[in-house]
Amino acid sequence: MQKFSLKDKLMNDYTEQDESKDISGERLASRLDDLSKIGLTPGNGSNRPGFSKEEKHAKELVGGWMRNAGLNVREDGAGNIIGRLEGKNNQLPAIMCGSHVDSVPNGGHFDGPVGVLSALEVVEAWNQTGFRPEKPFEVVVFSDEEGARFNGGFNGSEAITGKGDINEKRLLKDKDGLSFEKVLNEVGLDIEGYQESRRNPNEIEMFIEVHIEQGKRLEKENLPCGIVTGIAGPCWIEFSFTGEAGHAGNTPMNDRKDALVAASEFILEANKLPGNISESAVATVGRQMVEPNGVNVIPGKVTLFADIRDIHKETRDQLAGEILTLAHNVAKKHGVEIEHQEKIRIAPVPIREEIQDNLEKAFQEEGIRPYRLPSGAGHDAMVIGEIIPVAMLFVRSKDGISHNPEEWSDLADCVQTIKVLKNFIEQMQ
Amino acid sequence: MQKFSLKDKLMNDYTEQDESKDISGERLASRLDDLSKIGLTPGNGSNRPGFSKEEKHAKELVGGWMRNAGLNVREDGAGNIIGRLEGKNNQLPAIMCGSHVDSVPNGGHFDGPVGVLSALEVVEAWNQTGFRPEKPFEVVVFSDEEGARFNGGFNGSEAITGKGDINEKRLLKDKDGLSFEKVLNEVGLDIEGYQESRRNPNEIEMFIEVHIEQGKRLEKENLPCGIVTGIAGPCWIEFSFTGEAGHAGNTPMNDRKDALVAASEFILEANKLPGNISESAVATVGRQMVEPNGVNVIPGKVTLFADIRDIHKETRDQLAGEILTLAHNVAKKHGVEIEHQEKIRIAPVPIREEIQDNLEKAFQEEGIRPYRLPSGAGHDAMVIGEIIPVAMLFVRSKDGISHNPEEWSDLADCVQTIKVLKNFIEQMQ
Repeated sequence: MQKFSLKDKLMNDYTEQDESKDISGERLASRLDDLSKIGLTPGNGSNRPGFSKEEKHAKELVGGWMRNAGLNVREDGAGNIIGRLEGKNNQLPAIMCGSHVDSVPNGGHFDGPVGVLSALEVVEAWNQTGFRPEKPFEVVVFSDEEGARFNGGFNGSEAITGKGDINEKRLLKDKDGLSFEKVLNEVGLDIEGYQESRRNPNEIEMFIEVHIEQGKRLEKENLPCGIVTGIAGPCWIEFSFTGEAGHAGNTPMNDRKDALVAASEFILEANKLPGNISESAVATVGRQMVEPNGVNVIPGKVTLFADIRDIHKETRDQLAGEILTLAHNVAKKHGVEIEHQEKIRIAPVPIREEIQDNLEKAFQEEGIRPYRLPSGAGHDAMVIGEIIPVAMLFVRSKDGISHNPEEWSDLADCVQTIKVLKNFIEQMQ
Repeated sequence: MQKFSLKDKLMNDYTEQDESKDISGERLASRLDDLSKIGLTPGNGSNRPGFSKEEKHAKELVGGWMRNAGLNVREDGAGNIIGRLEGKNNQLPAIMCGSHVDSVPNGGHFDGPVGVLSALEVVEAWNQTGFRPEKPFEVVVFSDEEGARFNGGFNGSEAITGKGDINEKRLLKDKDGLSFEKVLNEVGLDIEGYQESRRNPNEIEMFIEVHIEQGKRLEKENLPCGIVTGIAGPCWIEFSFTGEAGHAGNTPMNDRKDALVAASEFILEANKLPGNISESAVATVGRQMVEPNGVNVIPGKVTLFADIRDIHKETRDQLAGEILTLAHNVAKKHGVEIEHQEKIRIAPVPIREEIQDNLEKAFQEEGIRPYRLPSGAGHDAMVIGEIIPVAMLFVRSKDGISHNPEEWSDLADCVQTIKVLKNFIEQMQ
């Protein structure tokens, strides 16, 4: 069997004309390749859970590259790696840019690393040309974005904002029963240090994140990258429809309270609602359980989860409200009982119009058609966006696949995105 | 804790005016109580799987009662117990009447035993009055009706008809990995004897089964018992809808192939079809599995089973055809793939009009309003009905509950049913 080489795969369809004078696609490919070897799975995927030794190893590797690029590198109490390039005027708040290097179990090699290495590549390009920014520039690697360890991510970025509830985190246990504190200890961290990692928002002007799209919009538009208009906040509602189980043979059709028929009408109708509300609104029933789930038994109970998102709070909450009303109306129509419980409701982070307009200018200057699209998934920028203005760029994903070894973005697309990123950051000086 | 006494519960609301001159409610209650003690579960349910020592014990107990009632008792090679009362003219084919004494795990105390003991009670009543039938009368206890052991029942009645595929049965394994043959051996039977249990249809004029309704129709009509119009044959079709899994946040509504939305439209519409076909037709989706079943993942695949029944083959098959067409149309509309596989298609057993009319006469003579209703569930009469004319009487079930310790039929209703049964059998002499 041939040894897996991400670099070979990346360079395979990367040509000289994709290369830029100051941004090195080859360096980026080498670094993605180096990271891919840490936690490589038998299926050539990536396995670097948050706060694991693999994540630590990856962060140390990036820290070394940061140092070589001339950054002052420190690890904060949450394990976030921050490489700072002093600006000409260090009184000015910094521009921060980065992402994460942890992964889901058997994930891909682009989700996270592309954002971190893009930020670092801007510094490498500046080193090449001798450019020195007016404002300090910080390249950041956030810890545990994916949340593979504790089933809930953003532990690195939440330490920066101080918005996460530390008492809730103290109660977390990983699958081996290890507490959050114990897991921090294992990688040389502690709760006190975690809490001290909070940053003063005045120190940072903006956080910018490059990330793979994990969707197919850019592919459809045939574009290397796009401008994120906002990060949708998910609202998860658990519904249970309770009818009456009964024998599928002995219960006439007109004497049934079939929980699955009611749930099915709900799912069908809920699917039609987002389109009436906004272009970026989405609603999904992804998880559904039928009880007792016997071929010849009328379903007595159906439990399902609605995942409702939009990039604006008003429209997201409007959609959640309409879905709630729908569920209750459908249940009433079918004579079944309904209960619901809101599981999460995270505020969406819309991205300021002015920031999107400035990104558009950078696209135009780099000769790329500016295209705006929402982010349906959460990112570190969603967390940081609670206290600091954020910008986000998406890189085209092949077939929209993510959280999977098949996850892919072309090297040429990554380089194009970094050009836009660099242009945008330079605009801000 | 008070000891469980089925007899006390049965006698509790049984009054003197419920008692008949020749049929003894108290004897019936005592016998149901005696059987309930064999395989009694901690929840006061019944646990007598087919071919278990509990079923054997119950059959031996009934065999003893048969002998005491003057019947010639034999066990055939399938473990069926047959108690024969010779008629005045033994050249005539016999009338056979009975049911089963095995149960589902933690089942009730009425499903099966009521039918066996009703048949026996007719003989007891004749003994009381000195009546001697013209035709031989056989009381039968069929083995393994429920199929709790091998996930497929009717092994006793199929031995009588010889219609079961013996090679398929040889391949059966119970949950402990024991083969059909080994299980027969454990209760003193063997495959050869099983095969020799086949009866010549000319020996039997009719099989009559009394059974609890396991539905709520008689309760709604406020009637103790009813005339079964036919036994619905189930057709089970497995459908799989395959769309495209995707991120619930990053996939726009107009770019989805959501297998669950398609399946939901199918379930909702399939529920409307039986009403257009016949009063007795039913269709149920009781079992459904969603993949990957993650809250934030668009369902890529949904597998579900449709259980389609009617008492007439033409209408049952017409309904199955319409459901197939519907599934394919819905899949096409939603742009998802569909596959289907027919799992079972058992012929319904309609009951001859003439037999139903004769039963109606018996109802009228006993002062009970005759009410006809279909049987949605399968019974030994369904199997025997393949080779011999059958009749069936249903006893009212409380709340339609069955296969559950809460299963209940009032003693007075059982006695009323036996009166009708006895009248009907005497009509045939």
